[in-house]
Amino acid sequence: MSGSIYGKVFTISTFGESHGKAVGVVVDGVTPGIELCEADIQKELDRRKPGQSSVTTPRKESDTVQIMSGVFDGKTTGTPLLMIIYNEDQRSGDYGNIKDLFRPGHADYTYQEKYGIRDYRGSGRASGRETAGRVAAGALAKKILAAKGVKITAFTKNIGGIAAEKYCPEEIEKNIVRTADPDAAPKMIELIHKSAESRNSIGGIVECRISGVPAGVGEPVFDKLDAELAKAALSIGGVKGIEFGVGFGAAEMTGKEHNDEMDVGGFKSNNAGGIIGGISTGNEIVFRIAVKPTSSIAMAQDTVDLNGNEVRCETRGRHDPCLCPRIIPVLEAMAALALVDLMKQNAALTY
Amino acid sequence: MSGSIYGKVFTISTFGESHGKAVGVVVDGVTPGIELCEADIQKELDRRKPGQSSVTTPRKESDTVQIMSGVFDGKTTGTPLLMIIYNEDQRSGDYGNIKDLFRPGHADYTYQEKYGIRDYRGSGRASGRETAGRVAAGALAKKILAAKGVKITAFTKNIGGIAAEKYCPEEIEKNIVRTADPDAAPKMIELIHKSAESRNSIGGIVECRISGVPAGVGEPVFDKLDAELAKAALSIGGVKGIEFGVGFGAAEMTGKEHNDEMDVGGFKSNNAGGIIGGISTGNEIVFRIAVKPTSSIAMAQDTVDLNGNEVRCETRGRHDPCLCPRIIPVLEAMAALALVDLMKQNAALTY
Amino acid sequence: MSGSIYGKVFTISTFGESHGKAVGVVVDGVTPGIELCEADIQKELDRRKPGQSSVTTPRKESDTVQIMSGVFDGKTTGTPLLMIIYNEDQRSGDYGNIKDLFRPGHADYTYQEKYGIRDYRGSGRASGRETAGRVAAGALAKKILAAKGVKITAFTKNIGGIAAEKYCPEEIEKNIVRTADPDAAPKMIELIHKSAESRNSIGGIVECRISGVPAGVGEPVFDKLDAELAKAALSIGGVKGIEFGVGFGAAEMTGKEHNDEMDVGGFKSNNAGGIIGGISTGNEIVFRIAVKPTSSIAMAQDTVDLNGNEVRCETRGRHDPCLCPRIIPVLEAMAALALVDLMKQNAALTY
Amino acid sequence: MSGSIYGKVFTISTFGESHGKAVGVVVDGVTPGIELCEADIQKELDRRKPGQSSVTTPRKESDTVQIMSGVFDGKTTGTPLLMIIYNEDQRSGDYGNIKDLFRPGHADYTYQEKYGIRDYRGSGRASGRETAGRVAAGALAKKILAAKGVKITAFTKNIGGIAAEKYCPEEIEKNIVRTADPDAAPKMIELIHKSAESRNSIGGIVECRISGVPAGVGEPVFDKLDAELAKAALSIGGVKGIEFGVGFGAAEMTGKEHNDEMDVGGFKSNNAGGIIGGISTGNEIVFRIAVKPTSSIAMAQDTVDLNGNEVRCETRGRHDPCLCPRIIPVLEAMAALALVDLMKQNAALTY
Repeated sequence: MSGSIYGKVFTISTFGESHGKAVGVVVDGVTPGIELCEADIQKELDRRKPGQSSVTTPRKESDTVQIMSGVFDGKTTGTPLLMIIYNEDQRSGDYGNIKDLFRPGHADYTYQEKYGIRDYRGSGRASGRETAGRVAAGALAKKILAAKGVKITAFTKNIGGIAAEKYCPEEIEKNIVRTADPDAAPKMIELIHKSAESRNSIGGIVECRISGVPAGVGEPVFDKLDAELAKAALSIGGVKGIEFGVGFGAAEMTGKEHNDEMDVGGFKSNNAGGIIGGISTGNEIVFRIAVKPTSSIAMAQDTVDLNGNEVRCETRGRHDPCLCPRIIPVLEAMAALALVDLMKQNAALTY
Repeated sequence: MSGSIYGKVFTISTFGESHGKAVGVVVDGVTPGIELCEADIQKELDRRKPGQSSVTTPRKESDTVQIMSGVFDGKTTGTPLLMIIYNEDQRSGDYGNIKDLFRPGHADYTYQEKYGIRDYRGSGRASGRETAGRVAAGALAKKILAAKGVKITAFTKNIGGIAAEKYCPEEIEKNIVRTADPDAAPKMIELIHKSAESRNSIGGIVECRISGVPAGVGEPVFDKLDAELAKAALSIGGVKGIEFGVGFGAAEMTGKEHNDEMDVGGFKSNNAGGIIGGISTGNEIVFRIAVKPTSSIAMAQDTVDLNGNEVRCETRGRHDPCLCPRIIPVLEAMAALALVDLMKQNAALTY
Repeated sequence: MSGSIYGKVFTISTFGESHGKAVGVVVDGVTPGIELCEADIQKELDRRKPGQSSVTTPRKESDTVQIMSGVFDGKTTGTPLLMIIYNEDQRSGDYGNIKDLFRPGHADYTYQEKYGIRDYRGSGRASGRETAGRVAAGALAKKILAAKGVKITAFTKNIGGIAAEKYCPEEIEKNIVRTADPDAAPKMIELIHKSAESRNSIGGIVECRISGVPAGVGEPVFDKLDAELAKAALSIGGVKGIEFGVGFGAAEMTGKEHNDEMDVGGFKSNNAGGIIGGISTGNEIVFRIAVKPTSSIAMAQDTVDLNGNEVRCETRGRHDPCLCPRIIPVLEAMAALALVDLMKQNAALTY
Repeated sequence: MSGSIYGKVFTISTFGESHGKAVGVVVDGVTPGIELCEADIQKELDRRKPGQSSVTTPRKESDTVQIMSGVFDGKTTGTPLLMIIYNEDQRSGDYGNIKDLFRPGHADYTYQEKYGIRDYRGSGRASGRETAGRVAAGALAKKILAAKGVKITAFTKNIGGIAAEKYCPEEIEKNIVRTADPDAAPKMIELIHKSAESRNSIGGIVECRISGVPAGVGEPVFDKLDAELAKAALSIGGVKGIEFGVGFGAAEMTGKEHNDEMDVGGFKSNNAGGIIGGISTGNEIVFRIAVKPTSSIAMAQDTVDLNGNEVRCETRGRHDPCLCPRIIPVLEAMAALALVDLMKQNAALTY
């Protein structure tokens, strides 16, 4: 079914495969009259693009976006925006050897089972490259949110057990793992380098904080703010979990400990992560996602081929040894898209 | 907006407040020709209903369901089913004292901010009582799934730090905390009793396992199976996180460790929890949710009232000291609803 | 699929069969804070109910509505409303003789082909009785619209060739065919009586006029105002066509004749029927629907039974000899539902 | 809101303005494994493209489509298809003189009122050029339907009062007005030429016939087959009405006349137009649409400008003197899209 469409009133429809001609997105339901140019989109795409540092894949893509519709005289018109990014450095030849086998941890097997056909070049639609469309749409969503005072900041919280202990938001974009703790950054980078050298990869945790969301956003009982953010986050390849506020820590807490009491200044704590009953409290929204280690590793692994024969698999291609640094702009984009959609839904409800 | 509707092709629309006249659900998109009677629904509602044991609220509700449409001569007709449960033991008087204040940890504040009005009796729509409609619809979904060989089993994995170490599915319904480890059960029960006695509550973790789902279920790139299950689970009140397979444990794993290698027998491990690329692998689906401690506690807490004055709040009413035992049938219901919806979507895709 | 759900942001989910236990609707996405009581709903249901005059079916139903949720202290809370109407005068025995055959013009055959099962009592879900839920939801929609200055008026324009030549809106509810032309009313009534006496039925045309809709309502390019009104109207049983403004008359007009020129006073004509480019112009919205003659007639007709044998069919039951008088409140309801949904969508767009 | 998205399970998202960079569509929910190349799409676009004859606008566009994703090794993969058509012959200069005024009969006024901004070049999004995306997606839908034995044929039934009396489907593409009556064709063409010469335009009626649809398609009570076809057709610019089977003629018929009786050979007539109770009967589906005369005429007309001043308007640009010939492939496309969506929905229902 039409699973590449997200959002109810602010809706994106993404398209494109890793080694097809292009990737991108159509955004519909856009507020008219917003000043928008390609540079607004490009700056977010640049944070996501491959080849940006020693901890990302060496694949080279300029990821230059073109806005093909929906903007006139520098402003959105309220009609759909097509944003397209042509693929450049495809090297499909790299994948010839894996077209008949299922790489462990990859969606090769499940795509084959579901569709009976798959574009094996660079994982096709299951590639992280698919997220370029999300980030482009998310850049527009972020601009809409910024005008309403909403700011979204994600950062690497943990890589392979090395945790960020400090939260210095201004440091995030200054280090290539995008962590908020400048002391943890070199250790994280070293661990990623070591993983890559041993033809392996490493997992991590990314945290996202959102300020400026007014109380009242989220549509119970199913389209709750946390439920939508969970869906948005889990729809990103490689994400295996999400938790809000103290999250799984709540399992060992009492009600007295977990409840955020209030006084005249507002909430005295934020264990709930800024969402109660599926609706924003006005407090900072805080959640974390579990990011699995990249499936593509150069080390040999056991698998089977299309005919069910056991084979050994060594993934060549070019891959990120750790997904966290590049998943950050994607997570921010998805959070922005979920928020704009729910804020607009709230406007419809109370109209 | 219309947030009380869930599902794209198999769709439920729930209604009802804790202390209104009734709660329930309309289910649309039902496969015609399924044998169905009220007893099929009632057995699941009985697992959810209050007053069933010493670890649940003493509120007494028979939760008797009536099917008002969509069934003829004992079979579904393919037209919408209304399933309604009248409220009986409401005692609204209990809530008079809290109508002007915001109970800590409750949705009182967020509902007031969002809607400008709220039914303060027993949390109104934000009550756990809202889930009766989900469970009724989920009972039908489970019946549809059972005919396709799918079985959903949830159980208490952890209460306040006491973990279930064994997995004995046949034990789950034999103990009042619904854990799969008969040795952990008495300790969990004792901890809940102690929490209740100290006018407090306690959190926990529930695990869900689903067998029999064929490979190919889930609609990338947004309506992935894990993304939909995450939304479905997080839409339940009190759930603060979800993780699939090894979940947050993936943060400390390498790709070689996390990847589920394959041989002629299929997958050699199940770290992914039965879902790769957002599509079922055919392996058992495994996920866990974090359940916060019940917000309603009898202990005094700080809060503010509608006028912004600081007040002390002691919640009377009747509440569960731990949400896990009763959240289990709700989680199973939501998982069943998500699965039927996605399995039908897959049928539409490949038609 | 879930075809009994209508609306994107203001959504209704209807249920119920002609001779089941109840019919009704769940409405979700309701603006909070609207004063609402059962009398607001009942007055519209009374316009639709059977047995109200000599030109309607003699079936007796009080059609008493109960609001079961979503209203607190006399106001909507923004949560779903269940409105239920219990069936009373069912006389299912009337239908025993037709359970194995397909009545000409009825949905018996198509329901059997689609679902493989059908509730043959009074057409089950295909009965006009299904529209009670629409009218109940529409009454709420009308109330929301009235507060914004929108007024919807439908009337019988033509019965079997007898046309209403005058438009006197205050006359509509004063005659039992609900025509706006008091001179045509007695002739229309006479024709209907004559049709009934000859065990036959008669078709007609209903016109709908909507004033007070501001310019800007409608969501191109698919969810245009006229496209949505067309879907809403054609979803009513017995409606076989719709036209806006001069409608099919446009086929014989030139652009110069059809274009509504403008001057400082606004549009100088309204050939477009108040909608251009799928968006309201601010002018009165005008459209007409073609209503087929009631399928159920007492006269003998040729048909086949479930086994494919040719049989003669005489429909007993109790039926309207002409659908127009009772379709009027249903058409108004559907127009109101479409309008509220699109006006709220417009609010979301421009938020 | 997101009004440029159509379909629930087979979904299209169109984009593009008349004088922007490109127009096109993303199609999601595509059955995997269908052989598809650009020529399959191009042949339908060629039927829609401007400049094809003396009765269409002289604007020259090759309308060359490129498939950018979703096809691999000549087959659909089940992932979204982007089909893009770059604009070539734009001549925006033609429109400078009308940027501050509202052309009569055009969506200039309503777009300005709705969005507060509009792309005035060639009507922007309100241009008929928007339909290229629909036709591209429709070509794919037609291919899916053809494999299931469904054939859609539309033709000009009436131009300015000149009616097609015969139905010779093989003649349709042999005359430039696309009528099924070769005798009427020259008279229709003459009338269109005369209209153009007098700087005016002319309306008409288009009929659509669909064979091969099995009984059972359509999702009551709102997503009925006729309701969806009505929405699909009315969403096309310039369409002002639709009628099924005998349509508005039903207003003057009795039940005995209108009912399609049955015998062992099936239905003995087809007054219903192949749809009863919103579900296909298996009979040929027949409907007609009213097409207004083109709004853009060279003759001077009264209107107002953005500041409310009265002005005279003479539309230059290049326009079709009659919409019927080019609306035919668009109507077929929309019918195909509605049908594929509903046939897939039916598959989901009965799964």
